[in-house]
Parts: sequence; C-alpha cells; structure tokens
Amino acid sequence: MILTVTLNTALDITYKVDALTPHASHRVTDVAERPGGKGVNVARVLAALGHDTVVTGFAGGPTGGVLRDLLAPLPVRDALVPVAGTTRRTVAVVDASTGDTTQLNEPGPAVTADEWSAFLTGYDALVREADAVALCGSLPPGIHVGAYADLVRRARAASVPVVLDTSGEPLRRGIAARPDLVKPNADELARLTGAREPLRATRDARRRGAHAVVASLGPEGLLAVTPDGIWQAAPPSAVKGNPTGAGDSAVAGLLSGLVEGLPWPDRLARAVALSAATVLAPAAGEFDMTTYRELLSRSTVTEHATAA
Amino acid sequence: MILTVTLNTALDITYKVDALTPHASHRVTDVAERPGGKGVNVARVLAALGHDTVVTGFAGGPTGGVLRDLLAPLPVRDALVPVAGTTRRTVAVVDASTGDTTQLNEPGPAVTADEWSAFLTGYDALVREADAVALCGSLPPGIHVGAYADLVRRARAASVPVVLDTSGEPLRRGIAARPDLVKPNADELARLTGAREPLRATRDARRRGAHAVVASLGPEGLLAVTPDGIWQAAPPSAVKGNPTGAGDSAVAGLLSGLVEGLPWPDRLARAVALSAATVLAPAAGEFDMTTYRELLSRSTVTEHATAA
Repeated sequence: MILTVTLNTALDITYKVDALTPHASHRVTDVAERPGGKGVNVARVLAALGHDTVVTGFAGGPTGGVLRDLLAPLPVRDALVPVAGTTRRTVAVVDASTGDTTQLNEPGPAVTADEWSAFLTGYDALVREADAVALCGSLPPGIHVGAYADLVRRARAASVPVVLDTSGEPLRRGIAARPDLVKPNADELARLTGAREPLRATRDARRRGAHAVVASLGPEGLLAVTPDGIWQAAPPSAVKGNPTGAGDSAVAGLLSGLVEGLPWPDRLARAVALSAATVLAPAAGEFDMTTYRELLSRSTVTEHATAA
Repeated sequence: MILTVTLNTALDITYKVDALTPHASHRVTDVAERPGGKGVNVARVLAALGHDTVVTGFAGGPTGGVLRDLLAPLPVRDALVPVAGTTRRTVAVVDASTGDTTQLNEPGPAVTADEWSAFLTGYDALVREADAVALCGSLPPGIHVGAYADLVRRARAASVPVVLDTSGEPLRRGIAARPDLVKPNADELARLTGAREPLRATRDARRRGAHAVVASLGPEGLLAVTPDGIWQAAPPSAVKGNPTGAGDSAVAGLLSGLVEGLPWPDRLARAVALSAATVLAPAAGEFDMTTYRELLSRSTVTEHATAA
C-alpha cells in the first residue's frame, strides 16, 4: 500500500466563463468540482496505475464533506482525519476565449493541537502498513513548520521510504530529516539553495539531507541526483497544454517505480511520461493511459558523466 | 408577516485578494459567506426594520445546507423548499488595491415539476398569512418563464399585495398579471419598454399592467409612477460606495411602507434612504441603522406636475 499525506486538502472548483474581465459580472457556464490537494492528486494517479493507495490528511466542514463524497467512488482508501474547521476551496476560472486560467486559493482551516495528535496516531498506524509514503503540499494554519520533518522521521523509524514534495520553510526543515526523495521544481530549488543553475542547485539540495533529489524543470523534464548516479529525463518532445498536476503525476511515477523496485532510469521515464500525459490531457490533473504508454516508450533518460 | 420569494437562492461568497490579475494565481486573504439571492436580501432588511418576515424559495445540496445554517441565526423564518439539485454560489472577488469587485455567478440548480408543485402548495399557505409578498430575482433552470405571473395571480386571488422585482421575459410576463408594484432599474426598464427616457419608460411599464412602477435610477434615486401621482425621490446627496444590494434595500423600504399603510412620499423616502445607507455600508448588502435614520430625515420627495 502507498500512503499519501495531504495536510491542506482542497475542494478544487473549476469555473468556465466566456471571457474573464476584471470588475465585470460573469455568468459561469460550467462548474466542475473534484477532490484536490497535491497528495490527493498523487493518489489518484497511483490508483490509475493499479496501486493500492490510502489518502490521509484533514477534512472538515461542508467543503470537507463534499471532498469526501467525491473521493468515495475513486479506487483510493479515505483515511482523512476530521477537523472542526472547514476545508478550503480553490477556484480555477478558465477563460473560454483564451484557454487561460486565473486561480483563487482560499487559506486552509486552522488545525488544533488535538487534531494534529489524532492525525499522528493514525499516521503511525498507516505507515506500518505502507510500502512508501508521500508527504505533499502546503501546511494549513496551526501546523508547526517542522511538521514534515517529524513525519519524515516517523516514516524512517518504521523503515518506510518517504518522499517529500513541498516548498519554503517546510521543505527546508523536512529535507534535514533525511527523506528518501524530494521533488522540488526550479523555483522551489532556487529558493531552497539560492542557486539558479539546475545541476548545482539539485546537488546542493541533496547535500542538505535528501537521499535523492528529482528536480522538475518544466518542459525540459526531470533532473535526478541520486546515490546511483545523475540522470536527465525528458519527454519525446516538448508538450503544450495545462501543467496543473503535472508535478503530482511525476511524484506518482517516482513512487510507483520505487515500490516496484525499478532502477532509476525506469522510474524517471515513468515520471516524465506521466507528467507529459497530464499536461496533454484536456482536464486539469487528468491523464490518458494510452497517451502515457506511448510517451513512456519514447521518453529519453540520459546518464550524466559527472558523479553525484 | 411579509413573505419574500427567492426561487434562485445563492450562497454569496466574498473573496478578498491583494490585486486581481487575470491568468495569475492568487492567495485569498479573507473569505466571507452569507445567504443570498434578492428575496433573502430583502428579508434581511425587513427583519432589521422590525418586520415579521418569512423566506421561501428553494435550497438544496451542500451549498443549500450552508445557506440554511447561515439563515438560522437571523430573525427571519426559513420556509425554503428542499430540492435535489445544489444551490448555486456567487463569488465576488474584491481587489484590495482598487476596491473593485469581479463577480462570478454559478447557474442555479434545475428544479423538477414535483419540486415546483411542492413549492406552490407551501406558497399558497404562506400567502394566506401574509400582509404582502415580494417575488425577487432570476428563475433557476426548469422553472417556466411564466412562473412569476402565476405567483402574482395567486397572491392577487388571496387579496395580498404583491411586488415583483425581476428582469427580462419573467418581468414581461409577470407584469401582465397585474402586480401591485414592480421595481425595475434603468436597464431593465429600457429592455422592457424600448424607451430610454425614464419618465416615458416608467409610464410605459405601468401601462403593461403594474398598478405602480418604481424605477431605480442609481445615484438619481427613484421615480415612482402610481395611481396617486408621480414622484421623484432622492437621497440628500449622491452617495459613493458599493451598490450591491441597494435595489433590494429599496424593495424592502417600499414593502415596509406598504404594509404600514404609509402614503407614497413616505414609502419612497424610506426606500431611497435604505438604498443610500446600503451603498454607504462597508459590507455589501448591509446598512447602518443610524445612517439610515439620518438619511431618511434629509431625503427629498418631489411630486411631478404631470398626471400618471
């Protein structure tokens, strides 16, 4: 079983409007809702790949209720912990005239010390059943900035591989607790290390404590600095589309390859192909299995001459 | 008791953002929710004026549940009829840098024939207890365009005064059923009559069947064409602020004066003062009682020399 943790889950709402004009009134022509937050997205991709997947984190209030109702029909197990606060919404306003998206993200609910304790009890029990753990996304108010570091240590104490995908100070603290893998994007990497050059920044990130670092470099694919070597992985050609969820699909590919014991090049090929298939899919965060398989067969993974 | 009907209720959500930039991602710094839809707004003002007020219409799904929870502590009676569909949301995005608002309105839930029948049964019973009825706002999908005309006839059959505040074809059909009062704004009036000149358009609207027409002309106040005469009512000076809900406050003022048997000039003074107090209040659709009383004492109502 793979466990994904989303401390700041969200109900992702997509509004379609004819054309977004600031300070005007708009008729929303289409409303779509789906359960969101990075770990929930990762879980959905893992389930599509056939992995037994459990989702934990927090859910509360009417929005949390809708999120759980939408999770129920998916092939993932819901182990979300109830909170008194209300799960946040994100609203993506898609302008039908241009295809561009304007994003509005509510703040998450404040989580109390008792709710965090309840989560930790459940987390420790789930980790014991897990083949791998993914810790994903931002922290809601009330959760201490070292929370991911704590969760990394608990997974490592149970000898369960743990992947961390977050940003800012929670990433800085979490990486020092020695996760098996972190997957920053170029911006997160630069903020963490102060370095802009990808290879230098990725190596620097690894020296901060992660066993392996896979940096997602947008259209250029992935750069992996691991104990076994350095690789650059790329899709067969630059793909154009909606990048929402592409990073989460890459995490799912890496996790999937990890629990199957695949060598790094195969894990990376899976990650870039899933990521590119997600960019190509019309709906944000979705991917088409045939497109994924086709991209997987044509993705390239090149080993870097320099040692890690 | 005053009955307000809101067939297309809404959960009104207000998001504050630092500055709205199309195609960018925004952190929402503040989220506020309140029960909405024009008849709900009218009821809130009536209750603040001390009137016994009942709200009916439809509510359904998780959003409808939140709307009813938010109505519960207000001094209005909730007689909303449950529907299988989900009550719509409206999202007002307030740009803190300019104070401007960008509005996103979801479509309403489809109402079935059985749900409409259940509503009519409840409506007929409530109308028998009512001193006046207000029919407010748009029609949700599934409700026939002549619905307001039907509701006007039922109120008139029970000899209960009925006010209609809607637009487009529902207004055109509704006015032909001879409501006691309609309150179009300048745009609605022009669409209904084809005339742009306010007095001409208001008289034309009255000839279509309404016993009285009070046109809201924005900062210029109200123009009333009634069986007793023609009046122009204006606040003491042009007010600057958020016009959201100002029209609903005017309807509440007119209804309030109607059930108290006030002469037209007093009803109109109440309506312009409430409307201006609503524009001046910092929160959309709210008003301050002291500001209202002060504006009421200084509003002007001028009789027009020409006969109706």
